[in-house]
Amino acid sequence: MMIIGFIGFGKVSRSLFDLIRSDEITFITSGENRSENTICAIEDSNIQVLDTFKEVASTSDILISATSPKNAVTTAKNYGKYCGGIYLDLNNVSPDTAFKISGYVDNMVDGAIIGKVDLDRPNLYVSGKNAEELLFLDEFLNIKILSDEIGDASRLKLIRSAFTKSLSALLIESYDLSERYNLGDEFFEVLALTEGDDFRDRSLSRINNTKNSFKRKSEELDEILSYFGDDLDMVEAAYRKFSRY
Amino acid sequence: MMIIGFIGFGKVSRSLFDLIRSDEITFITSGENRSENTICAIEDSNIQVLDTFKEVASTSDILISATSPKNAVTTAKNYGKYCGGIYLDLNNVSPDTAFKISGYVDNMVDGAIIGKVDLDRPNLYVSGKNAEELLFLDEFLNIKILSDEIGDASRLKLIRSAFTKSLSALLIESYDLSERYNLGDEFFEVLALTEGDDFRDRSLSRINNTKNSFKRKSEELDEILSYFGDDLDMVEAAYRKFSRY
Repeated sequence: MMIIGFIGFGKVSRSLFDLIRSDEITFITSGENRSENTICAIEDSNIQVLDTFKEVASTSDILISATSPKNAVTTAKNYGKYCGGIYLDLNNVSPDTAFKISGYVDNMVDGAIIGKVDLDRPNLYVSGKNAEELLFLDEFLNIKILSDEIGDASRLKLIRSAFTKSLSALLIESYDLSERYNLGDEFFEVLALTEGDDFRDRSLSRINNTKNSFKRKSEELDEILSYFGDDLDMVEAAYRKFSRY
Repeated sequence: MMIIGFIGFGKVSRSLFDLIRSDEITFITSGENRSENTICAIEDSNIQVLDTFKEVASTSDILISATSPKNAVTTAKNYGKYCGGIYLDLNNVSPDTAFKISGYVDNMVDGAIIGKVDLDRPNLYVSGKNAEELLFLDEFLNIKILSDEIGDASRLKLIRSAFTKSLSALLIESYDLSERYNLGDEFFEVLALTEGDDFRDRSLSRINNTKNSFKRKSEELDEILSYFGDDLDMVEAAYRKFSRY
């Protein structure tokens, strides 16, 4: 029997708990110091509950940290030392933070869920020396080992994010320009000829989603720029654009 | 019987001549002052040949100017006054130039073929007061009237070009970044999840096509910026990027 433990029982953990169904796997977590909402979610789910995260960490073959980017290092610092199995970090952290976390745990795997987590088969990219021990998850999701280096999974997620956010900036700029001349519909129409029939829908959903969160997107781009350095013209322009709103 | 005359017999004119097949349409052009290559192309095609472009202009119900962007104004100046029918400019000109051309001809239609011309049904966008007189072409190609304003067809083509060239710049930047960490294949792979299965092929063809013509692309972006003004962060960043190569 394999034991998988969660620290954090938010959307990512709950989705994985629902997805990975096997008679040979037991899931555990703890309600220790958790919010009322989380405790309700834990009770609703029928996951096995231990008193403390220390126990969760020492009992798990795979310990999944999925709390929040800002708690990722503290979680590793507090519970990593009790973890005898694999420590899989799924928080949305920078490569530098992933590296810092690996200083507190023995068998870390850097993981990034790319795209939505609540798909039939979500996409999990992992890197780290022990990453191949997670290959059995292939039964439940698309798992891809990038390399044995901590940081590669986080880096890939960051590069993807740099691309998609800059693309949103470009879409906003071009669509606004076309609207200035009352050519907005035609802008989507001519681009659909080469970019695919769903160009309009995909673009509008991207534009609206971005317009609702300029501040957060510009903060994320700022972090991306400080990690990768400042020779990224397009990402920098997107950052400048979002910061002005 | 309708008569369509060509000034210029390059790829655009030849494609239209091959495409628009009707017992009720006669095509004419002239070899006057044309290059040897063009004269060969004219002879090969069995189009009807008059001695001078003045005659072509005065005989045509629709006169199509498809020479080159830099000859577009001179062509209008020299032959526009003899044209009693529609003057359809299909040169890849800026909206300002389209407007200048309309000063030399009475019934101008601003036209832009968007995408490839040698498709089964190419896409022709037109604007201008007499644009609807071209709707009969619908039998042979996808024709779309934008408005009655000279310049709208050219503007739409320019906005599309601003978008696709900036997208190429973003692809080059993001792919180079991923390659810096040996994550090039994975970059395409993760983006294919949301951008479509052909993302890799489309992107690589765009990247290679752009890398072969940085100078020309940066000149085109420079023209786009001087026409639309300089508040286009993303287009400007693409221009800076291409100029550095």
